[in-house]
Amino acid sequence: MSNKPLILVTNDDGITAPGILALIEVMETLGDVVVVAPDSPQSGMGHAITLNATLHLEKISQKGDKTIKYSCSGTPADCVKIAINEVLDRRPDLCVSGINHGSNSSINVIYSGTMSAAIEAGIEGVPAIGFSNLNHNWNTNFEASKKYVKQIAENALQNGIAEGVILNVNIPDLKEDAIKGIKVCRQAKANWKEKFDKRKTPQGKDYYWLTGEFTNYDKGTDTDEWALSNGYVSVVPVQYDMTAHHYIQQLNTWQFE
Amino acid sequence: MSNKPLILVTNDDGITAPGILALIEVMETLGDVVVVAPDSPQSGMGHAITLNATLHLEKISQKGDKTIKYSCSGTPADCVKIAINEVLDRRPDLCVSGINHGSNSSINVIYSGTMSAAIEAGIEGVPAIGFSNLNHNWNTNFEASKKYVKQIAENALQNGIAEGVILNVNIPDLKEDAIKGIKVCRQAKANWKEKFDKRKTPQGKDYYWLTGEFTNYDKGTDTDEWALSNGYVSVVPVQYDMTAHHYIQQLNTWQFE
Repeated sequence: MSNKPLILVTNDDGITAPGILALIEVMETLGDVVVVAPDSPQSGMGHAITLNATLHLEKISQKGDKTIKYSCSGTPADCVKIAINEVLDRRPDLCVSGINHGSNSSINVIYSGTMSAAIEAGIEGVPAIGFSNLNHNWNTNFEASKKYVKQIAENALQNGIAEGVILNVNIPDLKEDAIKGIKVCRQAKANWKEKFDKRKTPQGKDYYWLTGEFTNYDKGTDTDEWALSNGYVSVVPVQYDMTAHHYIQQLNTWQFE
Repeated sequence: MSNKPLILVTNDDGITAPGILALIEVMETLGDVVVVAPDSPQSGMGHAITLNATLHLEKISQKGDKTIKYSCSGTPADCVKIAINEVLDRRPDLCVSGINHGSNSSINVIYSGTMSAAIEAGIEGVPAIGFSNLNHNWNTNFEASKKYVKQIAENALQNGIAEGVILNVNIPDLKEDAIKGIKVCRQAKANWKEKFDKRKTPQGKDYYWLTGEFTNYDKGTDTDEWALSNGYVSVVPVQYDMTAHHYIQQLNTWQFE
């Protein structure tokens, strides 16, 4: 058995996406890599898990390949659960998810399949990071991203990440020399103003496409949105304890009965 | 136009589930009710949204019905988005989701379609509550639940809920006189120990069902798990700012470059 770190790689764009190939390439320089990723795109899946359907796992790497790869029929969170419980023979030292084609900054962390995989690994006690590049284009250049992915993953392997915390990393869509560095941030207060594109079926029935416009309401200079707009890679520590601890006092003033 | 509160009702078990019928019944005593709920069960959908498929909305109430009802082909979060942006002609005063058939306490908040609908309403600036009953049975008795649903919804309408906070309410599977009251709680540290049930298709290929055992590691007496095990209704204030603010200092000690 190798004494290099064991690194689990997954994503939400599917196992053939260029973003995961870039992530695998970096992780192969840092440890032994096992990939368990969805067999098809799973964007916007949030933290969905498969409760009412069967899961299928297919080994797609060949004997002698450097990296072991499985495609899975489930969601990103399913991939992490099955990887840790059925595929790997020891607990991974790190789980990385991405590189997502598109932003997962601010409120997008809630909808993100990329981050749900990382958060699932965090829940299982595995240090985990989700990486996203702001460019949606399938053919975007990941060279600058790879540099920052490596720096952040090396730090995570060396320093560890506290239990209950997962890193949400977003990388601006800029050339390498235009990126100013890395900023640790908080999640900006931002959301989507939905616009439903209403159309008619050939039979004359209404149907809808969900679209929307992203709106940042947060003027702080310590947010992920600020960092990304100003040429920095953003790193937000995320937690799955969703308790609004500050509001417990207030709720205890409510009158029941 | 009525000057009663406008209440949006949704769920994740689908518009025909007994739990949502109980919830509608209570809300009809508190205001004008509009229901937009999934046309089929959506359990475990987390905060999924529909980005790569069309959405269909069907008005299923008849003219003259007390409550307007739409079924929607999307996820719970989609239902809330389309309700607020396409169905309702004014912002609702309250959004309630449930009553879920099964627990959404502690870590289950992350996987819960019920809570994702409530959280989506919270993101849109609407005071919101998710209700769940610990009994999974489709034919469970909701009489005791209805009493507590009403008390908590009345308080929310009267006191409001701070922006950024959503309530996660779980109701123990007990008869009315065995329930001791309501406790405001924090989310317990608990998770699922997965067990994959591995089977073979008729053609001899492996496939899996995701199952697991819920494990509570948290000895605190201020948690939702403690309250539920001790006969109380649990109310956890939940936030969608997922930043682990306490960890920002630590991450700023990492060495980049």
